Amino acid sequence: MSQQSVETGIGKLTEIWQEGHSLPREFYLSPEIYERDIERMLLRHWICAGHESSIPTAGDYFLFEMDRESVIVMRGHDGIVRALMNVCRHRGSRICTRESGHASSGVIACPYHAWVYRTDGSLHGARMMPADFDKSAHSLAQIELRIVAGLIFINFSKGPLGLDAVTETINSSLKVYGWHRARVIHQERYLIDANWKLCIENQMECYHCAPSHRDYSRLHSQAKPGVEESTNRMLARTREFGIDIPIQDHWALQARAGQEAGYCRRYAMSGTAVTGSEDGGPVAPLMGDFPDYDGGTTFVYVGPLSFFIAYTDYGAIFRFIPKRHDQTELIVTWLVDSKAHEGVNFDRGRVTWLWRITSESDKKIIEDNQLGVSSRFYQPGPYSFPIEASSHRFVEWYLHDVNEHGEG
Amino acid sequence: MSQQSVETGIGKLTEIWQEGHSLPREFYLSPEIYERDIERMLLRHWICAGHESSIPTAGDYFLFEMDRESVIVMRGHDGIVRALMNVCRHRGSRICTRESGHASSGVIACPYHAWVYRTDGSLHGARMMPADFDKSAHSLAQIELRIVAGLIFINFSKGPLGLDAVTETINSSLKVYGWHRARVIHQERYLIDANWKLCIENQMECYHCAPSHRDYSRLHSQAKPGVEESTNRMLARTREFGIDIPIQDHWALQARAGQEAGYCRRYAMSGTAVTGSEDGGPVAPLMGDFPDYDGGTTFVYVGPLSFFIAYTDYGAIFRFIPKRHDQTELIVTWLVDSKAHEGVNFDRGRVTWLWRITSESDKKIIEDNQLGVSSRFYQPGPYSFPIEASSHRFVEWYLHDVNEHGEG
Amino acid sequence: MSQQSVETGIGKLTEIWQEGHSLPREFYLSPEIYERDIERMLLRHWICAGHESSIPTAGDYFLFEMDRESVIVMRGHDGIVRALMNVCRHRGSRICTRESGHASSGVIACPYHAWVYRTDGSLHGARMMPADFDKSAHSLAQIELRIVAGLIFINFSKGPLGLDAVTETINSSLKVYGWHRARVIHQERYLIDANWKLCIENQMECYHCAPSHRDYSRLHSQAKPGVEESTNRMLARTREFGIDIPIQDHWALQARAGQEAGYCRRYAMSGTAVTGSEDGGPVAPLMGDFPDYDGGTTFVYVGPLSFFIAYTDYGAIFRFIPKRHDQTELIVTWLVDSKAHEGVNFDRGRVTWLWRITSESDKKIIEDNQLGVSSRFYQPGPYSFPIEASSHRFVEWYLHDVNEHGEG
Repeated sequence: MSQQSVETGIGKLTEIWQEGHSLPREFYLSPEIYERDIERMLLRHWICAGHESSIPTAGDYFLFEMDRESVIVMRGHDGIVRALMNVCRHRGSRICTRESGHASSGVIACPYHAWVYRTDGSLHGARMMPADFDKSAHSLAQIELRIVAGLIFINFSKGPLGLDAVTETINSSLKVYGWHRARVIHQERYLIDANWKLCIENQMECYHCAPSHRDYSRLHSQAKPGVEESTNRMLARTREFGIDIPIQDHWALQARAGQEAGYCRRYAMSGTAVTGSEDGGPVAPLMGDFPDYDGGTTFVYVGPLSFFIAYTDYGAIFRFIPKRHDQTELIVTWLVDSKAHEGVNFDRGRVTWLWRITSESDKKIIEDNQLGVSSRFYQPGPYSFPIEASSHRFVEWYLHDVNEHGEG
Repeated sequence: MSQQSVETGIGKLTEIWQEGHSLPREFYLSPEIYERDIERMLLRHWICAGHESSIPTAGDYFLFEMDRESVIVMRGHDGIVRALMNVCRHRGSRICTRESGHASSGVIACPYHAWVYRTDGSLHGARMMPADFDKSAHSLAQIELRIVAGLIFINFSKGPLGLDAVTETINSSLKVYGWHRARVIHQERYLIDANWKLCIENQMECYHCAPSHRDYSRLHSQAKPGVEESTNRMLARTREFGIDIPIQDHWALQARAGQEAGYCRRYAMSGTAVTGSEDGGPVAPLMGDFPDYDGGTTFVYVGPLSFFIAYTDYGAIFRFIPKRHDQTELIVTWLVDSKAHEGVNFDRGRVTWLWRITSESDKKIIEDNQLGVSSRFYQPGPYSFPIEASSHRFVEWYLHDVNEHGEG
Repeated sequence: MSQQSVETGIGKLTEIWQEGHSLPREFYLSPEIYERDIERMLLRHWICAGHESSIPTAGDYFLFEMDRESVIVMRGHDGIVRALMNVCRHRGSRICTRESGHASSGVIACPYHAWVYRTDGSLHGARMMPADFDKSAHSLAQIELRIVAGLIFINFSKGPLGLDAVTETINSSLKVYGWHRARVIHQERYLIDANWKLCIENQMECYHCAPSHRDYSRLHSQAKPGVEESTNRMLARTREFGIDIPIQDHWALQARAGQEAGYCRRYAMSGTAVTGSEDGGPVAPLMGDFPDYDGGTTFVYVGPLSFFIAYTDYGAIFRFIPKRHDQTELIVTWLVDSKAHEGVNFDRGRVTWLWRITSESDKKIIEDNQLGVSSRFYQPGPYSFPIEASSHRFVEWYLHDVNEHGEG
């Protein structure tokens, strides 16, 4: 299909879309629309690539891979963390082929023809190239990268959205939980056979929590009757600690002009639970400014793909990373305070339990959703308001972005 | 490829087709032509989804899946069997995810957001939807379903072909074998890496029986010298039992106006064989009106995808269900009389032996056919008449349908 | 995409191509461009299908499979080796389904409907066909085949390029090594997840040898300082044996008018090595006219896909056979002199060691190259001259062929 016809296709499909309803099925099936999603929406937004505690030492790196792109997130010998494209400037080979590693001699060499790059991406040496070869014109491509409260955000576009609003939101929420001095203890990847948009729609609503996530629902008050009251009690406790985490909503089409979208909201845990653990009890040392458990959780969103949950004793980062039109990778990363030591004051299995079982369930329900919307008999259905309002906001935002933005 | 160009493509390819010969290779390879096959031919015809003995009790269901469609074939609490599309009216999730099951509490709940449907497909409850939400407008989509002699036929189109002619054919053949009170004892699925049309061409001819199916050929007289004589002797025996199963041929382009295509023909077993078993001897209690073995078999076809073989002591249903342009599922279902009991008067291995080994061989030869027709050097070749005449009739029918019918 | 738009696409992409640089990424990713590569370039050129020692006896055959084509390379009962398309003239089934075999009764029968062909491809019998059926019009399709020094070359086009220039090159090189009386002792297949052009670019340069193939580099002088001097010493030794293997370069766009492209070049082994073995020492009896080791190797190329290395005691044939736009099979075949006997005067593991480990490495580096060029951030980079000059020549040749040749 030509670009022309895809554009017309998206425009026409957007017209068919009925407000308050899920998307027409082509949006979930078409490889051409997926390609357009990537170029018009996803390459423009900031994505959380990980946490800087994963690369503490100069020369440390990990790979972040989306669609057909591979990024080397590396701490340079100047201490600066950069996002370097994992594509050799000679003939395009992948340079780093392991999920993470260390540039032991202060450089990384492409395994193919041994072009050698410094940790800042500049070309150090290219064997047998002519005397007049301009090494300075053959640095690795570099994309935008910012660190906020230890979280590494990257952006594939040339003139990225501003990150000030998101920085403010994170500093007044996740930083209060001490995420800037937290430490990654575990990561899991869930390959979901579904279009990325179904993953985000699922992520944005807790309508499915009761039927699909029994344990999550047992521990969280979100989407339950009386949630406001219990949340207010929790917020009072937080204030007693001298802590104030303001609710903020500049997500989706409410993003500030030229700024990346962000969101922060707090909910009480359910009953006597104080954190997201099997029995609701503590599983790791307290984090950040918290002198004690306040019985709450904090939810933060950044852009369309990155989500964060802060419990008082651990945190989790969620990224839904498109791989193909019908495949998305959910990467979950767990954080604890840097003073926590495995086997001493936390057990990895207990910390990660809730979001391992919940992510496994999410994979299953999203895949069943993909199978269903592939039917000729699928009709976009009504979202339940207000509990699915954020899914609807995502759909509106998505349609706006892919219709408005002409360049990749 | 645009719809326009596919239509032109099919038209042009049909012109290239040489009567008496197999199809040009694009018909077997092109995903676009496959999509058109589904919409112009296969969604319009009746397909045997199974036998009602699989769902005896109110709330029992099984899934029937073709292409990207999934149908819940369910016996409602009113006793009526319906074909409900397995697509939630909320946001499109698959509702039933197991091959078969039972609506234990009289309803089925979508596992995603717990919308609850009655066994007639009507929406019973949708949590947290607004007071003015019209449940009656959100029943599961339902497609046409008819039961003839226990056989469940479904049709995906809005104005389906009539089923009277087929009903008459089945009532005068399979019903005589007591299929309306038969019982499913076994089912096998064979995933064939080939376009569905190669499967049907293979199914329609016994030119390949001698080289490819040694045991089938040993037991059946079809396609052998002297078949007419032995069949006439068999028919005489049948008449002695007071049984008359008329030959009928209103299949393919001979279908009656506005009616689904049907066919019934009888052949003698070979030598002393009385049924399709390893030694030719009985393997289960006599079925239907038969007081004894008459040494014959009855072949029935309905539409382009469903085939039936009735032996005097067991029956088999064959469906070739397209999954993708290059993949088709053969589902074989075995029936015996309802008074037959496993381990008492039949052995499942012996009843199913012939059509397990024959179906495995068919899978192999059809896949090798697909590999061959994918070559640039493949030239459509001549059918052997009369033994491949029915394959040729299928090809004529197919070309007529995909060229004539403009709507899905 | 229509043929028109692909042609325009290739033309436009060729204009974008910058001389001295690798290809734009679409050339490595697009299924449409791949299809055009096959039809405009690869079906026109000669490909080495194997060595005739694999089929010494009348009725022996092996299959050669490229893209979706399968060729039966068979020695007929007249002793002539033919390339017969593995596509039955009845309804297109594959006839031979094993990698190699023997027409034991002097004929091959299609397993589907038992049409029987003679070993020259003519139709011997077709059951149940009418009296006026013209068997002589239903021979298997046959493509061009030539044998040069025991090497079997095939060509899928109707008016193939001449093979005289290549014959001359092979006769003055590989034949001197006695390849016409050599024997195949081993074959390995490496399925490479990459476009075929990346495989050829890799094959044509030894810039990657030092970083990627430690053992190859240890044993060969190619791409090392002082290679000319050591090669001259080696050539002097060869001349002392009365042997002259002329360097020839009529490869790529230097091919003679209307002739297939060919190339022959000699290099010294490194240090004391006399052949491509783990310790550099002999691994099999001397081949051809060589009375002793001269410490050299001979490299021969034919067309775009076939490459040959002759050591003094063994030889290796390399073919990069496209399977899909993103998959290529490397087939490596090892030869020794016909007087060599396994376990007596050679050990298969020692003879095949170098090119097993080198081919495994090549698979890995080519696949990493494919992953890299798939990025939106890949920029075609500069070849290193002269060491990558042959890769560049291949790219120029390729662009010329796919732009100039309109028929398949």
